[in-house]
Formats: sequence, structure tokens, C-alpha cells
Amino acid sequence: MTEEIKTLKVALLGCGSVGTQVARLLTEQGDDLAVRIGARLELAGIAVRRPQAPRDPAVDRSLLTADAMELATRPDIDIVVEVIGGIEPARSLLLSAMKAGKSVVTANKALLAEDGAELHGAAREHGVDLYYEAAVAGAIPLLRPLRESLAGDTVRRVLGIVNGTTNYILDRMDTSGAGFAEALEEAQSMGYAEADPTADVEGFDAAAKAAILAGLAFHTAVVAADVHREGITGVTTADMSSARALGCVVKLLAICDRTADGVSVRVHPAMIPRSHPLAAVGGAYNAVFVEAESAGRLMFYGAGAGGTPTASAVLGDLVAVARNRLAGTRGPDATTYAGLPVMPMGETLTRYHVSIDVADRPGVLARVADAFARHDVSIRAARQEARGDDAQLIIVSHQARDAALAATVSELESLDAVRAVASVMRVEGEEGSP
Amino acid sequence: MTEEIKTLKVALLGCGSVGTQVARLLTEQGDDLAVRIGARLELAGIAVRRPQAPRDPAVDRSLLTADAMELATRPDIDIVVEVIGGIEPARSLLLSAMKAGKSVVTANKALLAEDGAELHGAAREHGVDLYYEAAVAGAIPLLRPLRESLAGDTVRRVLGIVNGTTNYILDRMDTSGAGFAEALEEAQSMGYAEADPTADVEGFDAAAKAAILAGLAFHTAVVAADVHREGITGVTTADMSSARALGCVVKLLAICDRTADGVSVRVHPAMIPRSHPLAAVGGAYNAVFVEAESAGRLMFYGAGAGGTPTASAVLGDLVAVARNRLAGTRGPDATTYAGLPVMPMGETLTRYHVSIDVADRPGVLARVADAFARHDVSIRAARQEARGDDAQLIIVSHQARDAALAATVSELESLDAVRAVASVMRVEGEEGSP
Repeated sequence: MTEEIKTLKVALLGCGSVGTQVARLLTEQGDDLAVRIGARLELAGIAVRRPQAPRDPAVDRSLLTADAMELATRPDIDIVVEVIGGIEPARSLLLSAMKAGKSVVTANKALLAEDGAELHGAAREHGVDLYYEAAVAGAIPLLRPLRESLAGDTVRRVLGIVNGTTNYILDRMDTSGAGFAEALEEAQSMGYAEADPTADVEGFDAAAKAAILAGLAFHTAVVAADVHREGITGVTTADMSSARALGCVVKLLAICDRTADGVSVRVHPAMIPRSHPLAAVGGAYNAVFVEAESAGRLMFYGAGAGGTPTASAVLGDLVAVARNRLAGTRGPDATTYAGLPVMPMGETLTRYHVSIDVADRPGVLARVADAFARHDVSIRAARQEARGDDAQLIIVSHQARDAALAATVSELESLDAVRAVASVMRVEGEEGSP
Repeated sequence: MTEEIKTLKVALLGCGSVGTQVARLLTEQGDDLAVRIGARLELAGIAVRRPQAPRDPAVDRSLLTADAMELATRPDIDIVVEVIGGIEPARSLLLSAMKAGKSVVTANKALLAEDGAELHGAAREHGVDLYYEAAVAGAIPLLRPLRESLAGDTVRRVLGIVNGTTNYILDRMDTSGAGFAEALEEAQSMGYAEADPTADVEGFDAAAKAAILAGLAFHTAVVAADVHREGITGVTTADMSSARALGCVVKLLAICDRTADGVSVRVHPAMIPRSHPLAAVGGAYNAVFVEAESAGRLMFYGAGAGGTPTASAVLGDLVAVARNRLAGTRGPDATTYAGLPVMPMGETLTRYHVSIDVADRPGVLARVADAFARHDVSIRAARQEARGDDAQLIIVSHQARDAALAATVSELESLDAVRAVASVMRVEGEEGSP
């Protein structure tokens, strides 16, 4: 390290939990990063909303500025790291930075899932890099393997747990018997859920990640609005008991499928067998299966969030972008050449678990089975349990079009013999397989 | 695809199970690969020992040649893929190819673990790429995440199952109660073990992979000879029973540790708790944990071998190398700047499980405990079971220097009260953690 080496200047936009860790690591790991890159990374400015607010001592206060746009486009800056989140001002800042020739590293899933095409277009147009490993599954190297390691393979399916907050809540509901509201409150008091938990519990966060994963996996454009999204606010203790009785747990899954006609991308709670590898993924961890034609089934597991793990992913991208810049090149683009249609949820093949409160009298099962048959839905298993004058009927279907299953449930609700459809949930994953 | 695009010519050295699949996929995926790369990959020649031998119909016989060196250095070739394996002639072929300006993709773990420094040096000198994702853990993207995604982090430990053959054998011994010889025979008849199983069962294969992993993870040079290596031929049914009694299974582990003073790299059978995520890794699957300072604990899981999965990794590298070539650049080098010493096994901290046949009389436990104490080894758990006149004494130690543990076992063997040391095995992994 005695010879003079080049310096690349980094601007940091945002200094919350991730930004603070990025700032700390850039300083602490400076010497190692310099040797790995062949150039020194210098943190040259940090844009924050309130420069006067208290900060972690790892943050050099002399670098703080309230003028993010000035920093993002400052002539001496080489690379811009954005960890503000949300659509604006992040979008304008990144577009301006790229226009000004800066390469960009971002952790912003919402922005990428909404405006990915425009951002990628800007990166190409201005000959800069756009890297975002930290946007999906925190520290887990997932986008780089999809974009690069599997670049010679054909991905068929990506399925996983990509939101730690909902995973924690469902875990608590399963183990403590708590209802959704109670488990959410507990998650909030533990710092696992935000005061406004909408983005997590309604599945918006997972849907943005699913859109990014599907786009990379299938080489096609997918935006958040393409993703069928159901959150976990409707998951009841009855659903949890039904799952338990079936040897299953309930998880919020992100599922991206390459079908014969296009792609199907969805986020919804589903029952999976307790023996399934994803069933054991607890708390704030994430795990994602990738199924490719040649590689077979791969699993990636690790911390899905948190300042330090997410900062690790940001730094990995920073190193890559810096190396590219030194070599005068760009990393591989996310290709969207396949141009595949996104199938509506109704066309997606799923399986349903339906728990029905029925009158305990002859002919009820026949009536119920007939409703399934009329919609061309084949029954995989049926079990009836007497409960005084009533009975509970549990039906698990074979795979069928989601629209046919939904129509079947509607019809069940209208049947005389049916008192109530107590719980409806999709079922994913055979024993031990995603 | 109507406009004219560039063609990059690929030479394939070796056409066994991996090579055949590489040839097939290059043809079948040709159009997709062309769009992803921005250039067409043309398979321009295949070197084999016996061009007249029967081949899979996916292999274009007109491309076959027996002159590997001529093909590897042919002026029109851009990229050389080596799937011959072993040290020579692979080594000379790759060095000559790089000298002739070809970028290289190889699956050759033995060669990389022996001559990695020379190969990397040649790649740097001649300005070409040397990629080898397929050399470790088959289809699992592991080297690229280590080399790139975690480039901004500090890896502390890599621990995993990287040899499918031994994993299958140990699995069979555990589930069927078979001895090593019987389980090996079964593995051979199933095609999971070679006629000469030495490389697998003696741990040479795993040791080569451990050397490659440690080098990349810790940015230092590690060769196969640096790796402490114990195979599974000495694992007995008594060991398996001891493991079972302790709630453990026996796995052949590759363990790379960054210690205060250097690195420690070892391959040996070890007991791990049945609740440990690696305990569930069955058959020919591989799984590797990576523990990094910021990212925390990551796990990678997938098919560790097999023609098609390994070919997927080769193709991922081919795409990357081709993109680099088009951009007139090279991928990141494996840096060895850290120059860390490799610690001798005796200095490594491990835990032992020792099962001892002793005379069932007063004072025996005291004598045994004293032997441990004299070597500064602290006992974590001791259990004695009467067996007629004799007793079996099970001791699990706390972490201690391996040399101290080995010396303790030697001393135990010399004690009057000890009839025999029935089983000695290292123990890894707390409950649920690597």
C-alpha cells in the first residue's frame, strides 16, 4: 500500500440504519477494500434530511449535507449509494446521478419494482452501472447468482420467504396461538414491525421483491403492479389450527413461475408442510429456492434485513461497481428480451385447503364434492369431523386454475348445507420439496 | 436476432458426463445465450482421448479431435472449457491456452487446489479470465458470491458438506446400520462412488475444495497440502451409535476458519446435532455455510455434482467470460494479499467426543477426568453406563487445542482402568447453528 493508488469518491444518500453501517464499514474496511478493488473508496459526502440530528459516532459529521441533489451530481463523485428508500426523491436523485455519469448502488426495492425499466434504461444510456443486491433478501447473495451464475441456465421457479416482519408475526401466531393483531403488536414492540406496518403485512414489500426476482429470473419486465398480492392481515387463528391439523405451517410466500404461456408472480400466505425446508425458517431470516432446468433446486438462506447485513450487500455491489469503473466497463445488464406476458392470478395453477362448517347430515359431502366437480376441481383429500349437530369438513384440492378454485369457494358459501367457509388457504410444497 | 452479431468460439476439452451436457446446452440454449451475452457462442471443437468411442447424440462428432493441445491453442478459439480433471494434461493445456490469449473456464478442483497460484498468475499475465465456479459444490453459486457479493465483508468461517459420495455413504451407515465397507459397496453399485473411491472416501476431493474456498474467503493462498485431511474409512458402526446416542449424525465436513493468527483449513468426519441444518442434507446434495462479519450467517444448498448441474455452473462462467471478452475486460482476480499463515491442525480449536470402555470400579471417572485436566482440556459432559463388569464412559470436551485433545486420548489409552478407547470423533455445531 505504499504506491499511490487511485481514489474513487462515493456519495451516500440516506443515513438511517443501513446508511450508518455503510459509512462505518467504508471507514473500517478501507484498507482491505482498497486492495480488493485496486483503488481507494473515499466517502465524500452524506445527504440526510436533518444534518443537525444526533448520529452514530461512526458517521463523520463534516460530510453531512441536506442538499442530496447537489451531492448526487457533484462533479468529483464517482459512485452514488442510495439508501433513502421510497419512490421520490430517490428516483430523481438516481436518474440525475446516472445522467451525470455516476454509477449507482441502491437498496430501493420499491423504486426498482416500479421504475426498473426507466432506471436500467438510464444506466445503459449513460454507460454507468446500476446494482441493487441489497434490495432483495438483505445480505443473501441472490440477484448476482440469478443474473450471473445462472446466466447459462433456464430458471423455472423462484419461491421463498422474503419478508422478515410477516415471517416473525406468522411464527408467533403459530407458536403462541396469538391472533394477528396481538402478534403484530408484539412484533412492533420488538422492533420487527414499523409503527405503520402496511408495507410489510399487506405484502407490498414482498411483492416488490417478487417483481425484481421474476424479472431477473425470467429475463422479462415485471413491475410491482403485475404481482398478485395478498397480505397476512386476513390470516386467522382458525387458519393456523387448520394448518397445524394438516401438519403444515403458514408462511407468506413470494412465488415466481415460468409457465408455458408466460410468467406468474404472486405473494400470498400459504400452508406448507412442516417438513418443508422453508417451514424451519424463523424470525427475521429469509430463504429463497431457485429451480433451474440444469442446476436443479438451489436454496439461499440468510439474514433478510438489518442495517449491517444489508450494508454488506451494498458494499459487495460497491466493490463490483468500483472494479468496473476502474476497468472502464459496466456489469451485465438485466436483460428483458424474453418479453413474457404476466398471467392473471385466475390462470395460475394452485391448490386450496378449504375448511367448511357444515350440517352433520347425509348427503352433505356429496353436495360439497359436486361443487368442486362443477368447476373442474379435483379433490385430493377430504376429511369430516363431527362437532355436535355440525361437522367440519376439510377439503384439499389438487392443482387447478385459481379462478376455478375461487369460484368453487363462492359456490360453497351459497350452499344450504354449508354454515360457513371457515378458512381458505392455498397450499404449496410437497413434502420436503418447494 | 436479425442483425449480425459477433461470434465467440469455444473449445471444449473433455467430453465425459459434464462435457456432454455442456455441448448439449451450448446448442440447445444457443439463442438465449446469444441475447444474454450479446454474441453467439459457437462450439468449435471438442478434444477427447478416443474420438471413435460411442458418444451421446447431443455431441456433434465432426467437432471431435484427439489433439487437445492443438485445439486449446488454435488461433480462432476465444474461450477454452476444461472438464478433463486431474493435474496433467489439464495443467499444460490451460497454461498454453492462456498464453495463447484464451480465457478459461474449468471445473478442475484438484488442479486449482494444487497450482492455483500459477494459473491465476498466468491469467493476470496474459490478460485473460480464469473462472471455476463448477470446481466446488457443482451447481451451487458459491465462488462468485464469495469472490464478489462478499467482497466488501470479512468472512470468518466457511463450513459445509462438499462431497456427495461420502455424504451418501455416511447417510446409509446412519439409516441402515451398515458398516463402511458395505455402505461403500452400495454407493458403488448405485453409481455414487467410483470403482477407485480413494479421492472421495479419503477426503482428497473435499480437501481440494476446502483449499479453494479458504483461499477465496480469506484472500490468501491455500493449497490442498495445507488442508488437514481425514477421510471416512475409519468411521465405525460404534461411532455411528455414539453419535446417535448423543442426538447427532456423522458428516464429513470441510471447515475453513479465520483465526486470530491465520487460517485453519480441515476436512474430517464430525458429529453434528440432528437439529443442525447440515444434518438434513442427504444423499448427493451439498450445503455450505458462510459466516461473515456483516452479512452474518448465509447458507447455500443444491446439487453438488452430476453432469447437468455442473454444466449449469460451467455455462454461467462461460457467459461471464464471454461478456468480459466482448467488453475488453477481465473479471475480478482472486486476491491473495492477506498472506495469512495456515495453522497446523494441532493449534486448531476443536471439541472431541470420546467413548471409552472402562472397568466398572470406583475411581475410574476420576482417573479419566484427571487425564483430561493434565492436558488442560475441560470436560463439558460425562456419562457412564454400566455394562456387566465393564462400563462405557462418554466424554464430550469443551473446545481445546486439537493437539491437547489428541494427547489426552493417547494418555487414556495407556490407563490401567481403560480397556479401550472405542470411538473418538470431533464435534461441531451447537444446536441449530454451524
